[in-house]
Amino acid sequence: MKPKLRIIPLGGAGEIGKNMTVLEYADAIVVIDAGLKFPESDMLGVDIVIPDITYLLERRDQVRGIVITHGHEDHIGALPYVLPRIQAPIYATPLTGGLIQVKLKAHKLLKDATLHTIQMRDTIRLDPFTLETFHVCHSIPDGVGLAITTPIGTVVHSGDFKFDPSPVDGQLTDFAKLAELGGRGVLALMSDSTNADALGHTPSETTISDSFARIFAFAEGRIIVATFASNISRIQQVVDTAVRFHRHVAVVGRSMQDNVKMAIDLGYLRVPAGVLIRAEQTHQYAPNEVVIVCTGGQGEPASALVRMANRDHKQVTLTPGDTVILSATPIPGNEEMINRTLNNLFRAGAFVYYDELTHVHVSGHASQEEQRLMVNLLRPKYFIPLHGEYRHLVLHARLAQALGIPAENIFVIENGAVVEFDEQGRGRVARESVPASDVLVDGIGIGDVGTMVLRERHHLSEDGFLVALVTLDARTGEVVFGPEIVTHGFVYTQAAEELIEGAKETILTALEKGGDAAALGVKLKEVLSQYLYRQTHRRPMVIPVVTEI
Amino acid sequence: MKPKLRIIPLGGAGEIGKNMTVLEYADAIVVIDAGLKFPESDMLGVDIVIPDITYLLERRDQVRGIVITHGHEDHIGALPYVLPRIQAPIYATPLTGGLIQVKLKAHKLLKDATLHTIQMRDTIRLDPFTLETFHVCHSIPDGVGLAITTPIGTVVHSGDFKFDPSPVDGQLTDFAKLAELGGRGVLALMSDSTNADALGHTPSETTISDSFARIFAFAEGRIIVATFASNISRIQQVVDTAVRFHRHVAVVGRSMQDNVKMAIDLGYLRVPAGVLIRAEQTHQYAPNEVVIVCTGGQGEPASALVRMANRDHKQVTLTPGDTVILSATPIPGNEEMINRTLNNLFRAGAFVYYDELTHVHVSGHASQEEQRLMVNLLRPKYFIPLHGEYRHLVLHARLAQALGIPAENIFVIENGAVVEFDEQGRGRVARESVPASDVLVDGIGIGDVGTMVLRERHHLSEDGFLVALVTLDARTGEVVFGPEIVTHGFVYTQAAEELIEGAKETILTALEKGGDAAALGVKLKEVLSQYLYRQTHRRPMVIPVVTEI
Repeated sequence: MKPKLRIIPLGGAGEIGKNMTVLEYADAIVVIDAGLKFPESDMLGVDIVIPDITYLLERRDQVRGIVITHGHEDHIGALPYVLPRIQAPIYATPLTGGLIQVKLKAHKLLKDATLHTIQMRDTIRLDPFTLETFHVCHSIPDGVGLAITTPIGTVVHSGDFKFDPSPVDGQLTDFAKLAELGGRGVLALMSDSTNADALGHTPSETTISDSFARIFAFAEGRIIVATFASNISRIQQVVDTAVRFHRHVAVVGRSMQDNVKMAIDLGYLRVPAGVLIRAEQTHQYAPNEVVIVCTGGQGEPASALVRMANRDHKQVTLTPGDTVILSATPIPGNEEMINRTLNNLFRAGAFVYYDELTHVHVSGHASQEEQRLMVNLLRPKYFIPLHGEYRHLVLHARLAQALGIPAENIFVIENGAVVEFDEQGRGRVARESVPASDVLVDGIGIGDVGTMVLRERHHLSEDGFLVALVTLDARTGEVVFGPEIVTHGFVYTQAAEELIEGAKETILTALEKGGDAAALGVKLKEVLSQYLYRQTHRRPMVIPVVTEI
Repeated sequence: MKPKLRIIPLGGAGEIGKNMTVLEYADAIVVIDAGLKFPESDMLGVDIVIPDITYLLERRDQVRGIVITHGHEDHIGALPYVLPRIQAPIYATPLTGGLIQVKLKAHKLLKDATLHTIQMRDTIRLDPFTLETFHVCHSIPDGVGLAITTPIGTVVHSGDFKFDPSPVDGQLTDFAKLAELGGRGVLALMSDSTNADALGHTPSETTISDSFARIFAFAEGRIIVATFASNISRIQQVVDTAVRFHRHVAVVGRSMQDNVKMAIDLGYLRVPAGVLIRAEQTHQYAPNEVVIVCTGGQGEPASALVRMANRDHKQVTLTPGDTVILSATPIPGNEEMINRTLNNLFRAGAFVYYDELTHVHVSGHASQEEQRLMVNLLRPKYFIPLHGEYRHLVLHARLAQALGIPAENIFVIENGAVVEFDEQGRGRVARESVPASDVLVDGIGIGDVGTMVLRERHHLSEDGFLVALVTLDARTGEVVFGPEIVTHGFVYTQAAEELIEGAKETILTALEKGGDAAALGVKLKEVLSQYLYRQTHRRPMVIPVVTEI
């Protein structure tokens, strides 16, 4: 049997193929992206979530390379967890590579890593794959899509893209290359579905400049702009508008300072001499000569903006007359934190501009018209919507179908599903799938926190626990110590003496009938749980410890 | 000193004056609304949150009545907790009264309550207050605003309102009464700020009918509409569109069935004979003859829609070809659950319409133009924006100021603040405020879960706990039992034997130096915490129990 080309999105629940996608032909594998996602709210205590790479580990010698499309966390954040287990070279454009270096350095992995810097319209040969990069606009510079020529045909991966008609850095999405690829013939297109429920076109990044100018024109005090640390284009627009209105720019917060420095060094951010000042210097200028750029657009508790809002920031104390621009849109799950931050900014007397009020943010992803354009430029034989939750994939699939791609040539798949193409270029979804679960990282543990531990944490978070200790004389069965109660997260113990006394009596009553330690443990758990529910209508985790000495 | 008129919004963090507002003059108090709010995501294990009524309890004999503006939970939900402690008569319009009856009955409080049914344009005399009701449009019928004549002047409370130009039930917000009140002279207006960041007008509720008609016209299978159980107008539009397209309507879910029955009985919902069918009967009809109305628009885990999406509903199994309309907008904090529900509905093969895709929901609250109209109709001397988070109040205040109300006559306040008017009708915010915290209800406990218990639950939710038991001989200090470890929510114990063994060794080493039980407990906590962090980078709650026998 001739080898097949296989395409496999990896990751757990949530977006499909966002953090990692695998291409395989015969004994060769290319990995596209190695990102993380942030835990959903029911993944209690979890730090980050990375893709399940079981499939790759079983074939680790076949991995020819890891190609990164752009420098966002959801595309590079899993590298520190993947590289120690799969020693493959990484390919990335300069800015993306810079961000990867910072990350690997922090994890002490840089010197063992092989990082190849590639350019736009570069060619990477990873036999039997030939990868050609082409520029795509996104909310970070230096993003690429990939055209991957395989023995069976060319597949195109869009990366995270939009067709911005007037990008801040002047670099359009590479229409010419896309048209050329379309002319050559594309077997399959994997395309970004994130905004498949957004009608029309995503506004150009430069439309933000007009909003900034209007706000800057009216602001009499300091201006504070919060955005993602990686959104270099947005920072460029803040700098440009600051220059126009004769203000200096202070970058506050470590992650943003690092990014700004690197972007300037690599030529991705242009700042006229004398414009940048340090946060400590802002007091040397009049308020209307200062702009502060910082993180916190998602209401992240440790971010500069949130600390300012809570009047807890060392260098910046908000005063009435300050203007704050929240140049970001909530990631689902962050709304409560963002709303609190907004309220506290208003409480501090600031004028606050946010997305509901003014046009101060645009998405980095293609809306429906741009998704249509991508399909029509490439005219692929097969279409695989990726990057987005399941509903986005379905909507994107319908859009492609309306453009003439037959329904049977469109594959709406989950992570772990395998799309395979035979030597005639006939595609189908394979019956078997590969492991694709959420791998939870908590502390230094990778994957050890699973359903069981999360269920316990959820139980504890709701009603706490109660441990009941009692020691019996092994011969007589008499109580020689206890009952002693240890409880946390259940009731306010200082006001619950009566409840605790009742629990002890319940234990002593249950012990009267005797029995061995194991049987008594089971019995105690039952009667205690019942007693506590009757008294409080709560169900703490009840753990009796009966010992005999 | 002559008595002053005092206005006090009660409640904790979040929206101001939403759940309860107090009016006081001399020895008389009128309470407006007695609602609950749902816990924020960091209020772990909490069922509901009610206003702090300490101030009222200290003056319980002075409370002349509790007037309810409309039947939503955030206006009636605290009645079961307030009534047992403050025996005051309740005043409500028929539908609102009906919803209150259902609630009080469930809490076995109905027979002890005094519930007066009032009409639109009714007058309630609660000496020295005279309250006049006037109709306001909202997302539930039968809502009222209040004009309260006091010895010092007339204050108007807008209730939750919008100026719907074509409400489903034909009942406009009472322009005539508002104009009359404006003519008479209004001392202070308390007005709904919820949508103060929304430009323009909120679309009319009847604009939904057009969307429904377009969707119904194309749907070939069943149609399932999810909305709030109390949104009678939305349900009316589903019924009307169903009749137009020759479909029968099944109401699924207890709360919605109860509401629909009551609304029909009281004349607020008009359903032609033969249209309503029971959920079990839907199978007797062709799919294109059926509409199902149910709850679940917020992704609530126990709701009918979510169980359908999870293929876990007894009566309704989704099949490809079904159409689902999510006629609701996410309440902040619910986005993740809603997104999951949407994805699962798409997975089941349904066509799903939601707010991003189609116009299938409108807000029940006034946008900026309507807020302006309210101010301009009443021309109050003082303006107190209420109902909304702090940022909405600030934006609403700016809007009122732009309409000519002097800044010093606008009071942007927090819950617990006291606005007082002297005999000349001069208003100010008093220096002292009254208790206004979030009162958390957990099981049958009211207010016993506070910062301490929440902090413990948060800690437990992140990293679980570890209890270490050891029993020493009181004379020799030798270990006679243990060390024994009980841990949950920390690590997957079956895979952590080595870690647990290490913890036991750490304990034994620490015990070698001896000491009394209390000192050893402190020591063990320290060394165990350090050991566990070193091994896992997690910080479980560590509780050593050292006993001596």
